Amino acid sequence: MAGFTIEKVAARAGASRSTVYKYWPSRGALALDGYVHTVGTQIAFRDTGDIHADLTSVLVAFARLMRKKPSGPAFAQLIGAAQTDPELAAAFSDHYFGPRRREVLALLDAARERGQIRPDVELTTIVDLLWGSCYMRILLPGVTGTLTDDFARDAVAVALAGAGTQ
Amino acid sequence: MAGFTIEKVAARAGASRSTVYKYWPSRGALALDGYVHTVGTQIAFRDTGDIHADLTSVLVAFARLMRKKPSGPAFAQLIGAAQTDPELAAAFSDHYFGPRRREVLALLDAARERGQIRPDVELTTIVDLLWGSCYMRILLPGVTGTLTDDFARDAVAVALAGAGTQ
Repeated sequence: MAGFTIEKVAARAGASRSTVYKYWPSRGALALDGYVHTVGTQIAFRDTGDIHADLTSVLVAFARLMRKKPSGPAFAQLIGAAQTDPELAAAFSDHYFGPRRREVLALLDAARERGQIRPDVELTTIVDLLWGSCYMRILLPGVTGTLTDDFARDAVAVALAGAGTQ
Repeated sequence: MAGFTIEKVAARAGASRSTVYKYWPSRGALALDGYVHTVGTQIAFRDTGDIHADLTSVLVAFARLMRKKPSGPAFAQLIGAAQTDPELAAAFSDHYFGPRRREVLALLDAARERGQIRPDVELTTIVDLLWGSCYMRILLPGVTGTLTDDFARDAVAVALAGAGTQ
């Protein structure tokens, strides 16, 4: 992110800074939008009717994306920068975490309707156990680099053994 | 962290910079050591023989600490800074996450010996589901500020419903 500026983007696009700012309110919002545009299809949610398979599939895809360079480290640095950059934090919330969270909650809600999730478990708890376990292995020094496919699978297996009805 | 320098610490301690560096290799290591010294007893692990109660107790204490100002936001900013500061990341790993992780794994291992944890579940998966779910609510824009006591309790309940033997 250190080298990412609205000026450079405007220059490469052959546009003025004000034109870029007309569409994106901040460099953070622009960086996020680029990121989401680039990786969105790789980590799209699908509802096949089998919540265990669908969560495993998307979490393994997320783990693979996070292991890639430069996308994984770039994403970790963006989250790091958001701790002291309220504009970037807002962009993250509005353009990435907010929409993604609504999608996975809809997926879990449909699974609960089908009787695959215990009615007494908060759906946000399941989301944060699963994605939190992965973000931990992306962001926390000492465990970064250990976000394997198997870890993502195990996380879903344990969380759904606890929150599921089977 | 922006205002925290070895120079200022040395000045307040009435010591030279080189004396401070003799005991702490970097400002990150010094900041972490101060943090751990200040909060260590509040989030100490205890083994009472009941893994559900012990994990709930320590995770709720961690959630309370993270909700406090300035300790919570300061900790989030330290983790954020570690994304682009390898020295700080190493200090985190060596002086905080490494030792804490060994302690909670020992706690879980003892619980497994007592038959409270399923033998087929990786203990690190349980750790990362639990702490990851909390770090998610500390670090990820849009869900920060929602790390309640009840959330910590629910996280333990779901994870142990999945990984425990009861």
